Amino acid sequence: MDADAFRRHGHLLVDWIADYLDHSERYPVLARVKPGEITAALPDAAPEDPEPFDAIMADFERVLVPGLTHWNHPGFMAYFAITGSPPGVLADFLSAALNQQAMLWRTSPAATELEAVTLGWLRRLIGLPDSFEGVIYDTASIATLHAIVAAREVAIAGVREKGLAGRHNVPRARVYCSDQTHSSIDKAVIAIGLGHQSLRKIPSDEFYQMRAVALSAAIAEDRAAGLLPIAVVATVGTTSTTSVDPVPAIADICERERLWLHVDAAYGGVAAMLPSHAHVLAGADRADSVVVNPHKWLFTPFDLSAFYCRRMDVVRAAFSLTPEYLRTAEGAAVRNLMDTGVQLGRRFRSLKLWMILRSYGARFLRARLADHIRLAQELASWIDAHPDFERLAPVPFSVVCFRWKPAGIPRSDQELDAANERLIDLVNGSGQIFLSHTRLRNRLALRVAIGHLRTDETHVRRAWDLLLEHAHQLS
Amino acid sequence: MDADAFRRHGHLLVDWIADYLDHSERYPVLARVKPGEITAALPDAAPEDPEPFDAIMADFERVLVPGLTHWNHPGFMAYFAITGSPPGVLADFLSAALNQQAMLWRTSPAATELEAVTLGWLRRLIGLPDSFEGVIYDTASIATLHAIVAAREVAIAGVREKGLAGRHNVPRARVYCSDQTHSSIDKAVIAIGLGHQSLRKIPSDEFYQMRAVALSAAIAEDRAAGLLPIAVVATVGTTSTTSVDPVPAIADICERERLWLHVDAAYGGVAAMLPSHAHVLAGADRADSVVVNPHKWLFTPFDLSAFYCRRMDVVRAAFSLTPEYLRTAEGAAVRNLMDTGVQLGRRFRSLKLWMILRSYGARFLRARLADHIRLAQELASWIDAHPDFERLAPVPFSVVCFRWKPAGIPRSDQELDAANERLIDLVNGSGQIFLSHTRLRNRLALRVAIGHLRTDETHVRRAWDLLLEHAHQLS
Repeated sequence: MDADAFRRHGHLLVDWIADYLDHSERYPVLARVKPGEITAALPDAAPEDPEPFDAIMADFERVLVPGLTHWNHPGFMAYFAITGSPPGVLADFLSAALNQQAMLWRTSPAATELEAVTLGWLRRLIGLPDSFEGVIYDTASIATLHAIVAAREVAIAGVREKGLAGRHNVPRARVYCSDQTHSSIDKAVIAIGLGHQSLRKIPSDEFYQMRAVALSAAIAEDRAAGLLPIAVVATVGTTSTTSVDPVPAIADICERERLWLHVDAAYGGVAAMLPSHAHVLAGADRADSVVVNPHKWLFTPFDLSAFYCRRMDVVRAAFSLTPEYLRTAEGAAVRNLMDTGVQLGRRFRSLKLWMILRSYGARFLRARLADHIRLAQELASWIDAHPDFERLAPVPFSVVCFRWKPAGIPRSDQELDAANERLIDLVNGSGQIFLSHTRLRNRLALRVAIGHLRTDETHVRRAWDLLLEHAHQLS
Repeated sequence: MDADAFRRHGHLLVDWIADYLDHSERYPVLARVKPGEITAALPDAAPEDPEPFDAIMADFERVLVPGLTHWNHPGFMAYFAITGSPPGVLADFLSAALNQQAMLWRTSPAATELEAVTLGWLRRLIGLPDSFEGVIYDTASIATLHAIVAAREVAIAGVREKGLAGRHNVPRARVYCSDQTHSSIDKAVIAIGLGHQSLRKIPSDEFYQMRAVALSAAIAEDRAAGLLPIAVVATVGTTSTTSVDPVPAIADICERERLWLHVDAAYGGVAAMLPSHAHVLAGADRADSVVVNPHKWLFTPFDLSAFYCRRMDVVRAAFSLTPEYLRTAEGAAVRNLMDTGVQLGRRFRSLKLWMILRSYGARFLRARLADHIRLAQELASWIDAHPDFERLAPVPFSVVCFRWKPAGIPRSDQELDAANERLIDLVNGSGQIFLSHTRLRNRLALRVAIGHLRTDETHVRRAWDLLLEHAHQLS
């Protein structure tokens, strides 16, 4: 593909994408293909000869588009609603063309320094102090893995060199989180060799927040049993209900017990930009590390996870390792991003955060987050006012958990679960809205997550109307 | 940014990128900024109000472009030369707009199934058998980490649940690689809790290939010492010299010793597409896992690392974990990509591999790889024929290692190291070519890596001329 062809196809693609970003509603938000359908429509082998880009795009539209679940759709309210915003999409286009590898400062001074600058911008917006150094990872899963490795590095002498096995003086470690914590914590402790049993899940209270008293007791019990507590993961915006763990109380415990405190604010952290929600990061200034995902609720195309650490020297002590072919004349005068992690190659991710923050400005971003929170409160109020629906959790951010529970018809939780499953399938089958579910106190809960840049009152109203309409049909 | 603005800025950006992809030579390939210069040119905080995209692009050109090291430049011959090719760049643009999350089949049937299809295409092109299932990770570092976790899962009963520490029947593990293996293996054993000492580096021979006999002896010695050998990492295309370990002999040893064999073919694997180089993956069909990076030498914008595994069930056994909020009706009828790794979120990376393979066709891609290999051979022949230069390693692919060693002037290795350091700085200072170095048998070696899509004879000739010219000046 030469420059002329790139230009021609690029311009056509800009028009396709412009149209898509504005009108993704014309597609059913949840894909309707059957398993194997896409595979069956594609050949088994790569072509020997070049194919025209127009033909590739035609196949994209014919074969792949029906197999897309449209995350970039204002009716997407499942899991967490995310957005590939226009300036972010343009930035990722540029980033692909530049193909920077910011492993060493010299291999991309721009990507290395812009990463620090934009993470500083975001840090100030959410009110974390200057003592936190930032680094971008792909996902919060990887950020958390690095946090737990750092905790392990502090707690277990010689672990980098000697590892964990076959050492008489290394007891089993313990990491604490609540029973509402994201599965990435489970995967992290498994991956780094602590074992799944090392993760002790502290019961949450009626508001799905970690019970600090139970955490204290668990640590004391584990110490008495000869186990080695090393870290606590507190969550600001859990995955099921977006509950907020009591970080100040947990920070007290971590200070007293000398444990690494990692705050998983992947979803909820950006809300601290709002004066009304600055409190959600209260206590996080005393954490050792905090993760916030602009690719969740800050309109940044996936992937960009911001990891902030007050002890980045520990992360470096755990991971830095410079083979001869990566030594450079700049030496210690520069920060080499490869030193803060497992991955050597790194994309120019800060470019999109920079373009988004500048293109929208902080005021607009705060207003959009506030809108989402307000819309969630409105939906919650409709649910609360309706005799046939029951809200199942508080709404601290923009996610509402509830279930359909027809008034006057006594039904078991099991019957209600089945009814709600049918209801969610009908709503999702509409193609207009995509909701997901969770399980709360062993009851199936519907989850409406509001977070797409273009989601407004009409979409939330539509979701509610569809719920009412299909619930009525099912009755 | 509304649709009209996106269209306008998108079209301008297409023109900027088209121009860049064709004329990146107008920039000095190695950035000339000083540490801190970019940071100093940028404000400390995000703006409150929106800024016009034109102003952002103007700052991009004024502040950031001078801080780019141009990896997408045909004179980039450092580390491994990579390419963000035009169809790959367009695909990444589209991928950012679609913002797919292929964690579950239902959250992106297209991305889930296209990943399997395109990895099948690549697998057949490089001649790996159908018994290998593929999955895309971001980097070979992460792919290798997963391979070693899988090896650990097989070798150490109960490791997923119980971990490594404080267990009387779990001895220290051993992982083997050569002294030429990439640092990502070191980082993997550190991260997963085996400890750096668990990695035993087997001496390489005069051609920088692992000595299979020494591997055998090391395993026997370790077993006798009560250590637990679990895996061997063989490399096809090492980072310093692109040497190829004797995979068939290593596979024999792994079969006999029941060790997981991981083949790191991140750079060299794609060369197996060529009939002349199919032998580089000989024995890899008997490996447990193989990693090949299209983002290295297959013109794919970073990141896309293809991991092939004959025992993906083990990777799943190590990592799969489905919280309630991720359960879906499809159940076991579909493959959920989140089950094969640490990361939950995953970009729609297969789209670029699909567009690249179709847009160029296999024949062209093979021809381009063959050209790069031929150009490297030519450069090697010029070096061999010149009395003042000394080649320091064989050239199995497209990387040449050598040094300047003026004839008739006896100099110590130390003096030659210093002279070669000056030479490389002068060549890199030209802005036309960027070379890196390595250290071979304690001698500083210059490294010319040929691999950019647009690198042709003129660039290689230019690199050679610059070397001769600056060597002459230094004499």
